[in-house]
Amino acid sequence: MTKIIDDPMRFGVGARVTVAVMTDRYVDVITNALQTTDPGDLVVQTGDVSTYLGGSETELLRYLTDLAAAIAATGEHASITVQLSRGCPGEVVCELPGGAGPRPVDVPEGRETGRFAAAEWALYPLADDVRAGIEPDHMRDIYAAIELAKENGTFRASEHFVTRLEGDLGTVLATVVAGWVMVGRRVQHVTSHLTVSLNSPSHG
Amino acid sequence: MTKIIDDPMRFGVGARVTVAVMTDRYVDVITNALQTTDPGDLVVQTGDVSTYLGGSETELLRYLTDLAAAIAATGEHASITVQLSRGCPGEVVCELPGGAGPRPVDVPEGRETGRFAAAEWALYPLADDVRAGIEPDHMRDIYAAIELAKENGTFRASEHFVTRLEGDLGTVLATVVAGWVMVGRRVQHVTSHLTVSLNSPSHG
Repeated sequence: MTKIIDDPMRFGVGARVTVAVMTDRYVDVITNALQTTDPGDLVVQTGDVSTYLGGSETELLRYLTDLAAAIAATGEHASITVQLSRGCPGEVVCELPGGAGPRPVDVPEGRETGRFAAAEWALYPLADDVRAGIEPDHMRDIYAAIELAKENGTFRASEHFVTRLEGDLGTVLATVVAGWVMVGRRVQHVTSHLTVSLNSPSHG
Repeated sequence: MTKIIDDPMRFGVGARVTVAVMTDRYVDVITNALQTTDPGDLVVQTGDVSTYLGGSETELLRYLTDLAAAIAATGEHASITVQLSRGCPGEVVCELPGGAGPRPVDVPEGRETGRFAAAEWALYPLADDVRAGIEPDHMRDIYAAIELAKENGTFRASEHFVTRLEGDLGTVLATVVAGWVMVGRRVQHVTSHLTVSLNSPSHG
């Protein structure tokens, strides 16, 4: 049997994404984007508040990039909210005991989309299992992730509670997934939240 | 001089809120709601991705309820994303050392709005300071918050990574703020994320 850390679904690797498009034609725009984005190997469940995605980090980044790029390509102003989670599968209450992880994976490669995004990003290492030798110093891991955003040019500013990212939509998403994966090499349960603004009138 | 835990701004009590209204008239609807919501004692800074709010838990709940109710009253389909944070002021990198908190405050009272909301909720106790005797068992605190939602009737289901809440918009917001405040009695740095769906065609 595959080990838990080698099975993204059993390790609880997934995302929730909410797409809000600021036009009277929002139903068509959102339905179209969801229908034209290839689910690949992901479990995709669409609800009224968000769409749940379950599967590997690489597939999640690919799907999120394709979906957001499809929305961006319409030219409509949109807000996309993404929650990423790994290491706490099943429900909001973890079914996976501490010590099952962490799950080390390579940082997935993103792709550039040619679309501009401004975003606010939060990253939460949720270390439960001090016995496993995990130092619950979540700021150390967050520093490392911010360093990555500085290196790839998406970092703009530290703001209250979030890091502001700007740049190519695909690179912004890749940065967020990379930070989440990198912190996940040391901490079992890691979540991240991102709010992306597309085609904003204030982006000129 | 006031103690840090008695000063919401120095303790970093605040929120970021993103309002996305799915109509061609989104600029008017959002501008109107922001202009008619009394900022009271809060610091309010509006940006292109979100609006930052700084101030006490009671004022935050009052503002969020008034703002969301104003959006709901337009009848337009909208998605409102809220991030709450306390215990890590200034920037994404905490300026407040571990051990400055926790900050115990009374659970603020919400008000009913007469508007229905469906929402997805995540709550993150980020315990850094094990030396201060804080057990970093974040699931214990999350259980307590979910119990509260069950008692007041907003709990609908545990889903992947989130708790689904439904009910009066004001009660949903009050539940989320209550959980955040209650966990904050034991943990200095606590964040919470909420995505609210208003006037959805699927809510019938």
